[in-house]
Amino acid sequence: MVAPSELEHAMEKMMLTFHKFAGEKNYMNREDLQKLLESEFSEFLKNQNDPLTVDKIMKDLDDCRDGRVTFHSYFSLIAGLLCACDDYYVKHMKP
Amino acid sequence: MVAPSELEHAMEKMMLTFHKFAGEKNYMNREDLQKLLESEFSEFLKNQNDPLTVDKIMKDLDDCRDGRVTFHSYFSLIAGLLCACDDYYVKHMKP
Repeated sequence: MVAPSELEHAMEKMMLTFHKFAGEKNYMNREDLQKLLESEFSEFLKNQNDPLTVDKIMKDLDDCRDGRVTFHSYFSLIAGLLCACDDYYVKHMKP
Repeated sequence: MVAPSELEHAMEKMMLTFHKFAGEKNYMNREDLQKLLESEFSEFLKNQNDPLTVDKIMKDLDDCRDGRVTFHSYFSLIAGLLCACDDYYVKHMKP
């Protein structure tokens, strides 16, 4: 068995983080999402300076309006944040 | 400055891996993609048992047909692989 690459390791971390907050369920409810955001994106959350940030993100991710954030929806959150980071990186940091 | 969370660190790794193979360009060409796949997904590549795997992935990701894989396209590759991993994890490994 070959050791996972750094990218595979990062992908595994991303997947397991979802399941850490989803618990036995295969989705996150609003409370789970809040805990994930506070734990993993605390600076991002603080910088929004908006007490409704979690609710706004929940509304974005809860596309079936059933109070559930699936892995696919969670991944679209990651995609949105990461594409914003990449734009910033390319403009201001890339050598 | 707060230390990045594990998830933020994983996201950074994902972004920097793209730029490592894209080099000064903000896209990967076929050769860059092949190097990334061989370096970061060597087991996945071997398991496909198909010499055309790189070309098939390139065709999937090169949505503008300009021989370029953008960060967004690269991210859709990661999304596809990770959603497949998640399906497997939920069915066979989740406690």
